Amino acid sequence: MTMQLLEPGTPGVPPFPSDRSPWNLAPSHALEHALALIRRKETAVQAWALLADPGTLPAPEERSGPLAGIPFGVKDVIDVAGLPTRCGSTASDDRPALFHAASVDMLVNAGAIPLGKTVTAEYAFRHPGPTRNPWNPAHTPGGSSSGSAAAVAAGMVPFALSTQTGGSIIRPAAYCGVPGFKPSYGALSREGMQLTSESLDTLGWHAADMDWVERCADILLPAAPAAPARPLEQCRIAIIDMSPEAVLEPEGRMAMDQAVDALRRAGADCVAHDASRELEMLARAHAAIMKYEFARNLAPVARTRPDGLTPSLLQNVEEGWNVPSPLYREMCALQHEMRTHWKALSGGADYILTPPAAGPAPTGHAFTGAPAFNKCWTVLGWPCLHIPVRTGAGGLPTGVQLIGPWNEDFSLISLGKQLEALLAQTQP
Amino acid sequence: MTMQLLEPGTPGVPPFPSDRSPWNLAPSHALEHALALIRRKETAVQAWALLADPGTLPAPEERSGPLAGIPFGVKDVIDVAGLPTRCGSTASDDRPALFHAASVDMLVNAGAIPLGKTVTAEYAFRHPGPTRNPWNPAHTPGGSSSGSAAAVAAGMVPFALSTQTGGSIIRPAAYCGVPGFKPSYGALSREGMQLTSESLDTLGWHAADMDWVERCADILLPAAPAAPARPLEQCRIAIIDMSPEAVLEPEGRMAMDQAVDALRRAGADCVAHDASRELEMLARAHAAIMKYEFARNLAPVARTRPDGLTPSLLQNVEEGWNVPSPLYREMCALQHEMRTHWKALSGGADYILTPPAAGPAPTGHAFTGAPAFNKCWTVLGWPCLHIPVRTGAGGLPTGVQLIGPWNEDFSLISLGKQLEALLAQTQP
Repeated sequence: MTMQLLEPGTPGVPPFPSDRSPWNLAPSHALEHALALIRRKETAVQAWALLADPGTLPAPEERSGPLAGIPFGVKDVIDVAGLPTRCGSTASDDRPALFHAASVDMLVNAGAIPLGKTVTAEYAFRHPGPTRNPWNPAHTPGGSSSGSAAAVAAGMVPFALSTQTGGSIIRPAAYCGVPGFKPSYGALSREGMQLTSESLDTLGWHAADMDWVERCADILLPAAPAAPARPLEQCRIAIIDMSPEAVLEPEGRMAMDQAVDALRRAGADCVAHDASRELEMLARAHAAIMKYEFARNLAPVARTRPDGLTPSLLQNVEEGWNVPSPLYREMCALQHEMRTHWKALSGGADYILTPPAAGPAPTGHAFTGAPAFNKCWTVLGWPCLHIPVRTGAGGLPTGVQLIGPWNEDFSLISLGKQLEALLAQTQP
Repeated sequence: MTMQLLEPGTPGVPPFPSDRSPWNLAPSHALEHALALIRRKETAVQAWALLADPGTLPAPEERSGPLAGIPFGVKDVIDVAGLPTRCGSTASDDRPALFHAASVDMLVNAGAIPLGKTVTAEYAFRHPGPTRNPWNPAHTPGGSSSGSAAAVAAGMVPFALSTQTGGSIIRPAAYCGVPGFKPSYGALSREGMQLTSESLDTLGWHAADMDWVERCADILLPAAPAAPARPLEQCRIAIIDMSPEAVLEPEGRMAMDQAVDALRRAGADCVAHDASRELEMLARAHAAIMKYEFARNLAPVARTRPDGLTPSLLQNVEEGWNVPSPLYREMCALQHEMRTHWKALSGGADYILTPPAAGPAPTGHAFTGAPAFNKCWTVLGWPCLHIPVRTGAGGLPTGVQLIGPWNEDFSLISLGKQLEALLAQTQP
């Protein structure tokens, strides 16, 4: 994939993706490189809610482990010791956290350096922060993990922790043209993270390329039993190009077609599959579960500091109390039931290929885009991976979303690596 | 059930359960009553880690809602605004929480008053706090929710929030002779609570009687679709009296026999069922899942403040890092699979009756007792309810554990109410 990263207000910077290469070439200079990129681009991109005081950061040579000296970003709903967790809101507790979240601690223990907190929509919901799309500042970076996706896309860090309740990892990954990974529900601890919906919230990450997706997975997820990756010639992939709530735009279709072509040429059996009935049920389940749980998890803040919250968030809390409990219970039962229905959703395929969003990032910043192509898969708790595919006529990236069965995180990452390599080969 | 509550060092207090009745008779005097009981008994029982400054508590007449003016306790791993969450450890963050946990907020919104934090074993694990068994101070109250069970048993509060990862609600309920309820996994938000094992941790409560269990459920859990309670004449109850890790003691057997007799006389079809194969698999799953997740969730504290933790906790963290990831993944898959196997575990019955512990509370305070009869059911995420049955020759209570299918919390509570009433009738 050849992409041209526009440099809003910061000319003279080499084009994307060469910005990323320093992470692989010189890890001992990674921190310095990250700080330089942030100095150069942060005014335009505004990916960071808060940067750690550089004086408090350990020298890269003091770190050891597989990620020694590698700086990373942390969505500002996840604790980093010494920094407040502001959740994109003035209503939040602004005292510094005493301990790292479990996920941050695992990365720090592997030698990585938490550089700061990345911008999140208000309490990982809808109201956007100041982040701009690094490809074109007139467009949204997506949300709610806006800062993590944009920081990685702008080359500031090789990876950043993010969260998804509807489409908050995969959609900004697509809009910002970087890989984004939502692991299997339950595979990564949420200790030290603000919960908004316990049945849906999943911690994941954005990363500069699939190698970095995998390096994070090696640290953060339980290793899979060693098994040879299935060759593409033996893979059956279900192509599901619809959402019950949105129509795929022409640029999104082109990304899908390009990925399917690449997979087919490599021998994969790609079969269109209609799961519209199941997806409609899942979209309904998502709406009821998210609203019901959001209200209960945000109520303590809404009651204590309502003035610090947007009217739209307060209204959503109110609506959540009005979701009938029997409907909520029924939708939770449906969620548990359908999580075991891989075959019905995939038509018996090994993986699913589906759009990550209707198209490229919309214009404007009031709206971070719709999770229409994400929420059903979040309900199912299956691992989801965004792979960038192409840059469209408007200079904005589009990609595809790969989905695997629950608990098959590493097998899905392996497929993603193959697709990334195929797409790089087939570039003109 | 006629029980004689021993009064360690505080003679002149009316016998149990008349201590409980004030909660139902005069809610406007409930706070005053609670504070009086605490003054009288706390020195002997030591159920509280921290009491709120009475001057900061709202006057009961200022509250409204279904629990107006009712005081309650909160296990000290769950946030109460204005109080620190000490987790039974000097290693914890001792700054006051800014917001209530979601569960506490729901109760406060219903008018209830969080009176203070109840004693927990160190980080809801093994190392016990100072709490004594209210029936006999030479015996353990059980753990890790020691303070919540003991405070309710001593008549200090009508209910208290607790948590269970192995057997931390049901076992102390049994040792302290009070109802204890662990809802279906996922039914009650864990926002604002220290997580130790995401796949297992469940928030529940101890309560003075089944009416109070139900009153809490009405506030905390999503209401079930209105359905008439199944009459006992149409109920089939599987009797499972074994654990893969412990032998039922004679007093535990007598409690089981008494409950089965009462249910049979009321027309229930009680059938012995052998689930030993499944229980052995589940016990193995529990060990791997709890150890693996505990290590990752406690690592941030263990790395930052190791001196504040006991050697036994640090050793358990260490052991958790040694659980092979493929084993953990396999056990998580087993957990997900077996959660759907109600029929295999129950032999097709409507409910399961099983011991809550091997017998009455053991002597001594170094050990809070084994979760041998609890951990398998916690892995399954099904609702579990302890009902006190009798007082043994040693003056200590024993009871039974009722278990229902996932999501059938209210139906299980309804069965528990019936059993409580039957046991009251059949007392000599």
